[in-house]
Amino acid sequence: MSLKLTILGCHSATPRVNAFPTSQYLEINNRHFLIDCGEGTQRLMRKYKVGFSKINHIFISHLHGDHFYGLIGLLSTYGILSREKELHIYGPKGIKEVTLLQLKISQSHAKFPMIFHELSSKESELIFEDDKVSVRTIPLSHRVYTNGYLFTEKEKPRKLNMINIGGYEEIGRADFLNIKAGKDVVLSNGKIISNKELTIAPKKSLSYAFCSDTKYKPDIVPIIENTDLLYHEATFLSDKEDLAKKTKHSTAEQAAKIAKKANVNQLIIGHYSGRYSNLSLFKEEAQLTFKNTDIAETGKIFSID
Amino acid sequence: MSLKLTILGCHSATPRVNAFPTSQYLEINNRHFLIDCGEGTQRLMRKYKVGFSKINHIFISHLHGDHFYGLIGLLSTYGILSREKELHIYGPKGIKEVTLLQLKISQSHAKFPMIFHELSSKESELIFEDDKVSVRTIPLSHRVYTNGYLFTEKEKPRKLNMINIGGYEEIGRADFLNIKAGKDVVLSNGKIISNKELTIAPKKSLSYAFCSDTKYKPDIVPIIENTDLLYHEATFLSDKEDLAKKTKHSTAEQAAKIAKKANVNQLIIGHYSGRYSNLSLFKEEAQLTFKNTDIAETGKIFSID
Repeated sequence: MSLKLTILGCHSATPRVNAFPTSQYLEINNRHFLIDCGEGTQRLMRKYKVGFSKINHIFISHLHGDHFYGLIGLLSTYGILSREKELHIYGPKGIKEVTLLQLKISQSHAKFPMIFHELSSKESELIFEDDKVSVRTIPLSHRVYTNGYLFTEKEKPRKLNMINIGGYEEIGRADFLNIKAGKDVVLSNGKIISNKELTIAPKKSLSYAFCSDTKYKPDIVPIIENTDLLYHEATFLSDKEDLAKKTKHSTAEQAAKIAKKANVNQLIIGHYSGRYSNLSLFKEEAQLTFKNTDIAETGKIFSID
Repeated sequence: MSLKLTILGCHSATPRVNAFPTSQYLEINNRHFLIDCGEGTQRLMRKYKVGFSKINHIFISHLHGDHFYGLIGLLSTYGILSREKELHIYGPKGIKEVTLLQLKISQSHAKFPMIFHELSSKESELIFEDDKVSVRTIPLSHRVYTNGYLFTEKEKPRKLNMINIGGYEEIGRADFLNIKAGKDVVLSNGKIISNKELTIAPKKSLSYAFCSDTKYKPDIVPIIENTDLLYHEATFLSDKEDLAKKTKHSTAEQAAKIAKKANVNQLIIGHYSGRYSNLSLFKEEAQLTFKNTDIAETGKIFSID
């Protein structure tokens, strides 16, 4: 089990020479996800060696340009690269119509199946699940309909505890399948040996919560509680809390409050307004409330083994 | 009179770390035009210090992504920057619908008037004219409907030739307006002094022809004849002439043939396929046919005074 997050872009919308709009690449339990896709994402994917073909699922938080204007270019490139595999795209209602219209007017060669999962619920919902990972929405509150996403590794089965099993002559290979399946063993004398004694707990399942543009919204805390890694936007410092409220963004302090309430292990902040040139001020402000905070920077990798 | 062309992007569609899709910024006779707008153009505008607010006219050659996927981001940025001035956008039919849909779903703040000039004619037509510059389309032949654009400085009026005027005592200030307006002067003895003798020709009007994606199309030659500067795409070298034909692109040699037939002063080639890493091969191939060839590179400036 492992989790590796590559920050591609982590700034807000105004274009600057070395500031790129939101995009992240997440590898979790051998699944590969792209999260948001601002303009220029595909070039950053090349730069930071993100394999285009590994990605089968793209999650878009909301339809502001700095979070999805790079999607159409990436899809066109998949067409040029003759992709054949299905690609799943999750995002707010409207994403399908605008994407298909763009592909149509450019007479794109993209022939691979694109499966759109359009979201409109205001409640957290399970939107993806396989044997390795599940993904839930985190309903946020911004100027347009917006979701964050919670990525969680599936729990692996308990492993055989061969030392404890060795203590019982009667228990042999023939029982292993039942034990792995969670069953207790009944010895010939009627004694019940609990499954817990015969197995070892698997490694903890890791989780990553991505909370893109949102006002301070403490009611997301129950959804993201105890996650290993939380990304939460921090567009402003507390000196601009009024502006954050007005534009439905958060301050670094507010992001840290969410991290603290949710008892996460580590917080990453990003989506800095172009007003600020010194990003370390964001870290300093957040760390007053939540110590284990780091700042997102283009190309930075966060990994947990 | 002057002409200054800044190359922003000059590569074909496949994303690479340091290769950007087509975009150019043209300053001609104090008018400022953006030509094509591939993904990432607005960031390159910042990098090469192109003033966002100077541009009132954007010309899009065709609706392949590598020529216009950066437009929507630029328009959104104009919204963020609270632009109020009219912006004119010229491009193939369809550009208005897709742009307005994108702005609608992102609930953009772009409140300035956007005036779309949708093109569909297969003949060259005058699409912009003021007292300084005129712009005509150059009908090209690509996989989708495509135009190049010819930018021409307006001829300035002839200037008074004060030395020659001084030779005629009878001709005075009262005649100057008529002379500037192109009239001959009739002396009291009935002799006619030609306007040509009394005036000096203005500086030559400069012109720039932008020929984006196209197959080899010699019938554009009469439109671009004698232009000072010609940009013509050269996606391939001659070793891939078959592929150029199939994809409706040109080779460096074909671009040079157009330049030679049209008797232009200088040729710039660009839109290189990702197959080629050594761009000097393009220059070498073109120069065998047309000596005064240079290659487009990101950030390069071509100017004529």
